[in-house]
Amino acid sequence: MNYDIIVEIRSLAGLADPEGLAIERALPSLGFDGVQGVHVGKVFRFSVEAPTETVARRTAEEMCERLLANPVIEAAEIRVVADSPGVPA
Amino acid sequence: MNYDIIVEIRSLAGLADPEGLAIERALPSLGFDGVQGVHVGKVFRFSVEAPTETVARRTAEEMCERLLANPVIEAAEIRVVADSPGVPA
Repeated sequence: MNYDIIVEIRSLAGLADPEGLAIERALPSLGFDGVQGVHVGKVFRFSVEAPTETVARRTAEEMCERLLANPVIEAAEIRVVADSPGVPA
Repeated sequence: MNYDIIVEIRSLAGLADPEGLAIERALPSLGFDGVQGVHVGKVFRFSVEAPTETVARRTAEEMCERLLANPVIEAAEIRVVADSPGVPA
C-alpha cells in the first residue's frame, strides 16, 4: 500500500534562524507590522510503498536520520497523511 | 489578537523539482526502496497580530505575494493554526 508522507524540518528551538530573522527585519519596510517569530523550515512530501502505516512511518524516520535532516541542529516532524492506491504525493 | 500562521510554498505542479529528484535518485543506494514522488518545499511559521482571523489570513496572503513566494513558479498554502495570547509561533 502507498502512504503519503509529509516531513517538516525545523531548526531546534534556541538556534539561530538567519533566514527567518532577515524576513522579519524586511517586513516593516514593506508595510507589514505586527508579524513576529518568523521561522523558516523545509518540507518534504513523498509516498512510501509499505505493508503498514507503522512501517511507512519508520521508513520516513530513517530517511530523516540518514538524509533529510541534521539531528544536531534540526528536528523532524513526520505526518502520514493518507493512503492512496499507487498515486505519488 | 495573535494568530499563528503556517505557510507552505511548493513548486507548481509540472515544474521541475531538482532537489526532490536528487533525493529520489539517492534513496535506492541508501537502501530505501519504494519511495516515490519526492517534492521539496519551504515552510514559514510566524505569528500575526490582527483583529480577526480573516485579516490575519489576508496579511499572510500579501506576504506570500510580495515576499515569500514567486507566484510564477510556486504555490502557497496558508493555514491559520491557532490563536495564542501574545506568544509567537
